[in-house]
Amino acid sequence: MQIFTVTGMTCDHCVRAVTGAIHQLDPAANVQVDLAAGRVSVSGGRIGAPEIARAIDGEGYEARPLAA
Amino acid sequence: MQIFTVTGMTCDHCVRAVTGAIHQLDPAANVQVDLAAGRVSVSGGRIGAPEIARAIDGEGYEARPLAA
Repeated sequence: MQIFTVTGMTCDHCVRAVTGAIHQLDPAANVQVDLAAGRVSVSGGRIGAPEIARAIDGEGYEARPLAA
Repeated sequence: MQIFTVTGMTCDHCVRAVTGAIHQLDPAANVQVDLAAGRVSVSGGRIGAPEIARAIDGEGYEARPLAA
């Protein structure tokens, strides 16, 4: 399980954008987004934290790894 | 020019969702969204205020006609 704090997510569109960007890297990843908490959890995938953070940042947000 | 106050828009995805919903009704409509002000202006189209408001509401927001 990789957990990130993500700033800038405001609505369900943002949730879908973040989820979609991670799934584009790894369709097998299990992505959970807690919009209110500004937290994204990724499990079951084969991608590392830097790649996930870059994918999130690429959608216009700011991701910071919280735990590995 | 038809102007609406719209509540619930929080980000650029919301701007695109609202703009896209109106353009789906009338591709010729000129749509301006002021995200900070929560205001949507539509001009140059052939659709009425009730249809525009319904299209915006259909995306999960709440539109109220401000002026005709």
